[in-house]
Amino acid sequence: MEIIRPHTLSGFMELLPDRQAAFDDMLERLRRTYALYGFTALDTPVIESSDVLLAKGGGETEKQVYRFTKGDSDLSLRFDLTVPLAKYVALHYSELSFPFRRFQTGKVYRGERAQRGRFREFYQCDIDVIGDGALDIINEAEIPSVIYKAFTSLGLERFVIRVNNRKILTGFYSMLGLADKSGDIMRTVDKLDKIGPEKVRAILTDDYGIPGDTAGDILAFIAIKGTNDQVISALESYRGRDGLFDTGLDELKTVVRYLGDFGVPEDHSAVDLTIARGLDYYTGTVYETTMLDHPEVGSICSGGRYDDLAGYYTDRKLPGVGISIGLTRLFFVLEDCGMLNPELPTAPADVLIIPMTDDRGPATKLATSCREAGIRTQIYTENKKFKARLTYANRLGIPYVLLLGEDEIAKNMVSCKDMESGTQELMTTGDLIAHVLSGIEKKRAAAPIKE
Amino acid sequence: MEIIRPHTLSGFMELLPDRQAAFDDMLERLRRTYALYGFTALDTPVIESSDVLLAKGGGETEKQVYRFTKGDSDLSLRFDLTVPLAKYVALHYSELSFPFRRFQTGKVYRGERAQRGRFREFYQCDIDVIGDGALDIINEAEIPSVIYKAFTSLGLERFVIRVNNRKILTGFYSMLGLADKSGDIMRTVDKLDKIGPEKVRAILTDDYGIPGDTAGDILAFIAIKGTNDQVISALESYRGRDGLFDTGLDELKTVVRYLGDFGVPEDHSAVDLTIARGLDYYTGTVYETTMLDHPEVGSICSGGRYDDLAGYYTDRKLPGVGISIGLTRLFFVLEDCGMLNPELPTAPADVLIIPMTDDRGPATKLATSCREAGIRTQIYTENKKFKARLTYANRLGIPYVLLLGEDEIAKNMVSCKDMESGTQELMTTGDLIAHVLSGIEKKRAAAPIKE
Repeated sequence: MEIIRPHTLSGFMELLPDRQAAFDDMLERLRRTYALYGFTALDTPVIESSDVLLAKGGGETEKQVYRFTKGDSDLSLRFDLTVPLAKYVALHYSELSFPFRRFQTGKVYRGERAQRGRFREFYQCDIDVIGDGALDIINEAEIPSVIYKAFTSLGLERFVIRVNNRKILTGFYSMLGLADKSGDIMRTVDKLDKIGPEKVRAILTDDYGIPGDTAGDILAFIAIKGTNDQVISALESYRGRDGLFDTGLDELKTVVRYLGDFGVPEDHSAVDLTIARGLDYYTGTVYETTMLDHPEVGSICSGGRYDDLAGYYTDRKLPGVGISIGLTRLFFVLEDCGMLNPELPTAPADVLIIPMTDDRGPATKLATSCREAGIRTQIYTENKKFKARLTYANRLGIPYVLLLGEDEIAKNMVSCKDMESGTQELMTTGDLIAHVLSGIEKKRAAAPIKE
Repeated sequence: MEIIRPHTLSGFMELLPDRQAAFDDMLERLRRTYALYGFTALDTPVIESSDVLLAKGGGETEKQVYRFTKGDSDLSLRFDLTVPLAKYVALHYSELSFPFRRFQTGKVYRGERAQRGRFREFYQCDIDVIGDGALDIINEAEIPSVIYKAFTSLGLERFVIRVNNRKILTGFYSMLGLADKSGDIMRTVDKLDKIGPEKVRAILTDDYGIPGDTAGDILAFIAIKGTNDQVISALESYRGRDGLFDTGLDELKTVVRYLGDFGVPEDHSAVDLTIARGLDYYTGTVYETTMLDHPEVGSICSGGRYDDLAGYYTDRKLPGVGISIGLTRLFFVLEDCGMLNPELPTAPADVLIIPMTDDRGPATKLATSCREAGIRTQIYTENKKFKARLTYANRLGIPYVLLLGEDEIAKNMVSCKDMESGTQELMTTGDLIAHVLSGIEKKRAAAPIKE
């Protein structure tokens, strides 16, 4: 038979079992967190009709889309989870209750140029709250709390959720008579961290023809820093000059006001006037999340408030607020930073039963009892030397090996070998089950991220 | 803006939130069952290089594959989870420990002709045990136990796992001097349930030129019925005439011998000499699973033992045994048969908090406490009439509504409305949390399938 060289496409993450277990653990924690906030799980097709998926058309994204025909159909693979959500809500509008709170975790596809840390197939973990015509500001205040819970559930502690409001920015540029240039300005300001204030000033004056003192006003504005209360009180000094600005400031105050009640500690949030996000999409609160020790990674969870989710599919106004975590990239980055917890249990089984008699009956019955108690159990019956069997348990990280020989069977007992300590104890099945359950409960307390 | 009609491709299942919750519940139960048996979770790309995915080539399947080019790459969407597993094991051979036990649940793609109950995108839920050169028979004996646990965990009780051994069939046809026709015969015998014994006899004699008395031998053989012990003792009468037959019979006896120890009740398994499965692939034990009350559905879980998983990618001999559950089709069928349990809790939240004051602080704090206790919590703050808010809870099936007005806040209490009974009670946050947790625990005992 001709042998084909097995390979996996570049840009497609494929993990070995132990790393896969760590990845799945993270995914499961995010799903549990999202569910805790009353979001319903959704699953939409990976393939959609191209006219639906590319309704918005144009832009960088469209070039990256995996698009093809099958029979007469022009098909595309989803490149995010937001467009499918818009389609879903427009299509099933009359069957849904609003606010519609959904989470979705799934793979999306972008044919980006292959490079380190860039993925063509990757998981997004999204939540969105969609209103029917209107959506209360409390939904925007709640989002940082979901972000906080999501990352702490993964074991991450040193991060900050940056919050801003697009109405404040748009209103501020309006005050300066620069409403028509606000997009260009925000794009420039967004580079502040990378290029510094002097280069920002140069671009504003030279490229966009903004007078020097106005550029100074902009730089002074985005330089506003401090505690959330300090920033808000600095913003208050601009009040009364633009209606949209004032609305944005009120919204920001509401969001900040409820952070503590929603369980977000003060040192985990920061009003940051430099962030803007997706320029032609977000209209209110915007979020970014950065790791304190790894600012170079950029935002690990972003999103914001938008006014019109599904304008391409329906005349109904469906405002919403949402965030997205790119889990595949996050996993890659965490591993790269050495932040994956080596203590996380990733073994496929809690116990490995090694029968030492030809009759597999006692081992099989023991396996059945362990499984009924919720213990993940494997029986090892391959024709290998005893040492090779223990090596198997060790390589997989299985914490307990159960030995069942003539002696044990005669006494109606089991020998339980703790693979970490190396100690071996003879016990009854009942004691064994209690012993293993308490041992694995301790191990399971470990979180996937360790700082 | 031009409005594009939102639609979902035919053959692609897209569920409303409550049905999605039921589907996810089933998927999660299968994953938990597989994990209980010491299988490790795997995730492989949906897109693979066409030369890898179609290494086997030819056949009905290839026509159905979604294949396309992107840049210079010839790509295909996976059409099952077995070929990606073969690639994975061949590619990562040196980094894996054998026996390698993996489960994978994921979407696969087949461009079948669209018709009722046929899906082009569907979930498969597979387990496989792969040996390195050899694989002990106990692995084949364990599989029915996984099948039994998987379906009972879903709430299905009235089903039977049919077991056969391909060596017995091949050996038997060898005895009759029909080794070269065994494929044709098995394909014909496979139709027994549909066309009856007389038509089977006619095809055997007329189409394949098998002498009448030999056809009679075949019909007598496949007519062997009874308890597992009765079938095995009937098979014993053929012993000694063909080596392969004898090996198959020994294997079948081992599989049957351990069924009880593995926790499979006698009435849930049956040796069935008429089943053969994937003719050019399986070589030992084969399995089918049928619902007693819905035989028309056919097998809902099938698989078997094979000798050569990855021959297209490696010279190493990697025998294995595996099964697959097509969950998308199963879900469709169960719904069609009215077997989805309407009592299954599918609400996105356990409690809905309705604040009755302008200050959302107390409601927000209450939400935070509930979530910390593991209660899935939503706050409803939209500007709607009180009745509309209760209707929202009702439509989503949220079991408890928590009312927080001036009165409650002054007393440091919460009014908890049980949406099923309609009763309303004032309680402390502590009592409320205990009350809700015990209520949802009861509800969560419901299984997704109800017969």
